[in-house]
Order: sequence, then C-alpha cells, then structure tokens
Amino acid sequence: MPRSSVVRVDAVTLVERSAAALRGLGAPDASARLQAEHLVEAELRGHPSHGLRRLFVLAARVDAGLIDPAAQPSFEWTAPSALVVDGNRGFGPVTAYLTIDMLLHRVRQTGIVAAAMRRTHHLGMLSPYLERMAGSGCIGLVLSSTEGLVHPWGGAGALLGTNPLGIGVPAAGSPLTLDMSTGAVSAGKILDYAARGMTLPEGWAVDAEGRSTTDAARAVSGAISPFGGAKGYALGLSLGAVVGVLTGTALGADVRGTLDAEFETTKGDVIVAIDVAVFGGSAGSPLLADYFAQLRGSGIDGRAVTVPGDRARASRELALADGVDVSADVWDRVSELLASQAVDTPGTDMRREGITP
Amino acid sequence: MPRSSVVRVDAVTLVERSAAALRGLGAPDASARLQAEHLVEAELRGHPSHGLRRLFVLAARVDAGLIDPAAQPSFEWTAPSALVVDGNRGFGPVTAYLTIDMLLHRVRQTGIVAAAMRRTHHLGMLSPYLERMAGSGCIGLVLSSTEGLVHPWGGAGALLGTNPLGIGVPAAGSPLTLDMSTGAVSAGKILDYAARGMTLPEGWAVDAEGRSTTDAARAVSGAISPFGGAKGYALGLSLGAVVGVLTGTALGADVRGTLDAEFETTKGDVIVAIDVAVFGGSAGSPLLADYFAQLRGSGIDGRAVTVPGDRARASRELALADGVDVSADVWDRVSELLASQAVDTPGTDMRREGITP
Repeated sequence: MPRSSVVRVDAVTLVERSAAALRGLGAPDASARLQAEHLVEAELRGHPSHGLRRLFVLAARVDAGLIDPAAQPSFEWTAPSALVVDGNRGFGPVTAYLTIDMLLHRVRQTGIVAAAMRRTHHLGMLSPYLERMAGSGCIGLVLSSTEGLVHPWGGAGALLGTNPLGIGVPAAGSPLTLDMSTGAVSAGKILDYAARGMTLPEGWAVDAEGRSTTDAARAVSGAISPFGGAKGYALGLSLGAVVGVLTGTALGADVRGTLDAEFETTKGDVIVAIDVAVFGGSAGSPLLADYFAQLRGSGIDGRAVTVPGDRARASRELALADGVDVSADVWDRVSELLASQAVDTPGTDMRREGITP
Repeated sequence: MPRSSVVRVDAVTLVERSAAALRGLGAPDASARLQAEHLVEAELRGHPSHGLRRLFVLAARVDAGLIDPAAQPSFEWTAPSALVVDGNRGFGPVTAYLTIDMLLHRVRQTGIVAAAMRRTHHLGMLSPYLERMAGSGCIGLVLSSTEGLVHPWGGAGALLGTNPLGIGVPAAGSPLTLDMSTGAVSAGKILDYAARGMTLPEGWAVDAEGRSTTDAARAVSGAISPFGGAKGYALGLSLGAVVGVLTGTALGADVRGTLDAEFETTKGDVIVAIDVAVFGGSAGSPLLADYFAQLRGSGIDGRAVTVPGDRARASRELALADGVDVSADVWDRVSELLASQAVDTPGTDMRREGITP
C-alpha cells in the first residue's frame, strides 16, 4: 500500500460503519458502538496501528469462535480494593470501560483500587481510559501484556511483549496521559518497512540470532528491540511480570490473542485508580499545569517539547474538525466486511442481536 | 579521587561505624542502625552513589537543622487503603520501613494499599523495600521525586528529577526487583568524568543551552539526558507528576532536600503494595521463575541476560563474603566525622539522645 493512498472520512461515519460491521458479527449495539468508538479514537489520535485495521483481527477471531461478541464481563470484589475481572472472551473496551466504572465508584471509599483482568481482548489505545479516570480526579495506571515481540537485552528471541504502560494524572486544563509501548518501535512499522524494502534505522530490531539488523526482512523473523536499551528491557519485563502474576495469565512468548485468529486469549490487563483527593492532593492542581507550561516553553532550535497526551489531543481536535485520513486499503476492507455480511448472511444481524424473525 | 583508591571493609564494620556516626548526630540507636544498614546495602549491591557518601549530606542537613535525626513519622489512614505519611523531617529509611510495615499489615484486608509520603529524606536504594514487600507476597511499587537534573526531550534546563521507579514482583526463588532512575546516567558519574577531564559518551547530557555535549564540564552546568529519548522523558515526567500530585510536594526544579544542606525537603515518595493472593495470583509462581530462567538463557555472544535484581544480588553475596570495596576517600571522611564528634562535641551523643547529664 503506497503511503499516499488515504481517504478522508468524518469520525461519525467511521464509527457508524465500524459499529455496523461489529453488529454484523453479532455484537449488541452498545458493545459494537463502544468497540467502534475506541478503534476510531485511535485513528483520531494519529495511531492507526490501534485503529480500524484491528477490526479485521476482531472479525477473524469472532468467526473462529475465539471472541464472544455479545459477552459481558463478570466481576468479583475479592477484597474492598481488589476487583477480579473475567472478560468472558469479550471485546477489550467493553470489559475495560465497565471495569473503570466499578473502580471509580469504589475508589472514593478506599483511596486506591485495582482490577486484574483476564480472558478479555485488546484494550486498544490506553489514553481514553486514562482520561476517564483523570476526569474523575484519579491517577490511573493501565498495564497490559502482549504477544512476544521484543528481545531481552543481550539476548535472542521475541521473549517479551511490547507490554505497554499507561499513566494518567489529572491537572488543571488537560490531564497528562502517557500511553507508551516498551518496544523501540511497533511491529507494524517493521512490517511496513519490510513490505517496502526499506532499510531500518539502527537500534530498532535484531535478527533471529539476536544480532542487530537494519534489514527489515531479517527483523521480521527476529525481534523488536526494547526502547532505551537495558533499562527499557528491564521496565518492559517488570511490567509484563506484574500483569502475569496478578492476573494469572501467560508470560512472554506464551501470550496470545491480540494478533492471531487461532488461539484463546491468554493476555492480561491491570487497571489501577488512585483518588487524589483522598490522599489530600489536588486533582486540578494549577501547580502541575504551570509546570507543564514551563516544560512546553523549554524547547530549543524550534523543537516542540510536549507533555504526554499533547500530540494525541491536537491530532484529535484537528481530525474531528476536518475528518480522519484513513488508509484507503483499510477503508475498502471495512466496506468489504459490511458487504460480505449483507450478502453472505442475510438476516444475521437481527438473529445475532436476539431478534428472531 | 583515582578509581583504584579503595579499601576493603567488612559489612558489619561499615554498619557499626556509620551507625555510630549517626548516633553522634543525635539519632536514636534504632534509627541510626536502620539508616546505616540502608546505606551499606547500597555499597553491598554495587551502588556506592547511594551508599556511605550520602552520610555526609545527612550530617550536613542535621547540622543545618533540616533533618531531625530523632524524628518518627506520623501516619493517617484517610481511607481503608490510603495512608498519608508525614516523615516529620526524619531519615528516609526510618519513614519507609515503618510505612511498609503498616502497608503490609493492611494490604491483606484490602488487596492494594498506597502511601503518600512527604517531609521525609532520601529513601536510598529502592530494592530493599521491594524485597521486603515481595517477601510478603506483594507486588511493590516505589516512586520518588528528586531534584531537577534531567532536561525535557527537545528542551533546555534541568526541569525534571531523575525520578526513580522501583517495581518488585514475588517469584519462586528470588523476586524481580527493578530499581532504576529515569536519567541516562547518574549526576555523580558526570561529576566524576568532569573531575577527571574525561569526554562523555554521546547521549548522556546537554549543555546549559540544551544542546548535546560530550564536554563533562559543560554538562555539569547543563542537564542529564533522560534514558531512552522521548519515551524515557515522558516516563520520568509522568512518574514525577504522580508523586507531586499525590503527595502535594514540589515539581521539577522546585524539588529539594536530597543533595543540599540549605533547603527544607520538598520531595515526595509513593509506595504501593498489592497482595497477589487476594487477586487470585500466586506469589511464588514457578511459571515466573521458569520464564526468568528462559530469559537468562537467551544471551548471545557471551553476553549475560539478567532479570532486574540479579546483578545487585550477586554483588551483595560476594561483598558479604569477601568485604566491600569502599572509596578510601569516603571511608576517611567517615573516620573524620566520627573523630569530629568525639573531639568537638563531648557529651553531645547523650544530650541529643535525651539523656541530660
């Protein structure tokens, strides 16, 4: 796919068509909308890797019986601040938003709460969850395990996930929302370089033997490097260990379920909410906003210094006003998915939504 | 000080002499031992930057009336899982260990607990705290703010702390203990290079104008770079914001109290404990230990792949058996501190400990 091949679509249309496709897969309207909106949020924020192209993985997993599109999560408070969540193989955002609602209700009473989530699917971008928590005066943390894609520092093999970390901090004006992977680069970017026969920058990846490579094709059969060398490796490993131990889910190369359509999901997610006011802090602290302004003003040589969340917010505002530039290939595939549902499975929408003819 | 100028001292002697010096400053025996042991732990683990040389900062701060060597922290549970801690300007380890005791007691009931700590001093190495929590079946997190030493990514000025992060995860055998700063390198190392007129590696620091430099002298008046570029900057900023907001302490360049003997402490610390068993996980998971073994076995070209905590544990075992190589200069200064207390302030020990003659 050439880079220039994009179509501009307004966000409402993106959500409506994605939601229709998800309903076509058997999702109830509310779940379809939540999952669709979350995918479109990634497009709006300039992160298409977490956007509409994930729809096809979800569809393939539904078709393979690995995702239950109508599933609702089960909740158990095992202690006043401890929530254990079984996603019942449903959509990630459906599980995550309901979990956050439960956490935000309880956190007023206990100060800090955590949810250990298993048997759910890809949460997608973390920043919308962090914004939800920050909007309720809470510091939020989100940790997820992912498929093995990253090599150990000094070693060979894709033995670590890209194990992303989300941190949200409420502040006057806009919150800080860190939403980062612990890999140096996304797997999608390496595949993109390989497809176009381009040379990788140094430090992005290693080959199957664990040796640094700039050959994208060799990197595809190797592993992504951790960001930040030894420290980034140590951080990614630690986050993956926290998720695995707390949720009782798989570790390293045994994590499955966000990229394939073959295996039951074995990933885990952890969400923590901390009510700032309970600890005597101020959720809308002007001090923090002033500090952010100082940082943003510190750039040299025309470089922009940003606070985590700034870029995504700017991208979102622009895209809401002017429309989203979506990959034409991806947009075609959404149409094909919708068409296939209409042609191949007449009446399926209704039956799957429980309205028997 | 030339690098070779070290003396080998056994750990017991290190603790005894350090504790004596702290008693000489007015610390009760229990506090003196706790603080001394914590400094010596850093020497044992191969991190002298957090070891005995910190004793002189503590002494100067006591002399300036900024540390109360006899202080005990005050605790308030503002909610079932929320502990607010006032260190009352006492020693960091005294506050931290008592805080952890409170957290570990409560976490059995609520699943997750957090402490927001203010008006305390340098916690020192984080890994001993993480080991304490892991030893009780808990995942532990420790966040601290520090003086501004790190520049924003793309900007000038030492506007961020090195804001360290500690993560501990219990496992069969030894726990994982991540104890890392978010700076590319320690301030001490840059000072050391400057003192010896050595050229810095690329990527360690910027000058006062924010431009990358390998001139150690220019780096001293500039700032340390964040580890891992833009991501490391974003992470360090996020951690500093969490600590500042939750503890109501200072942000960025306003953080004081671990390096100087002029200002009241304005740093903050956050400790979180999560009881793995309450969430249905296994604290002594053999799966995690097996995963660690797989990682350790993945090294190529003779490189060692480690799990966070491995190196420190190996260094500690060796040093406990063979003695610790301490900087001769630092060891001389410990002796001088002890001598000055004996000569200059006869009877001070007793008066300061509240035993009036």
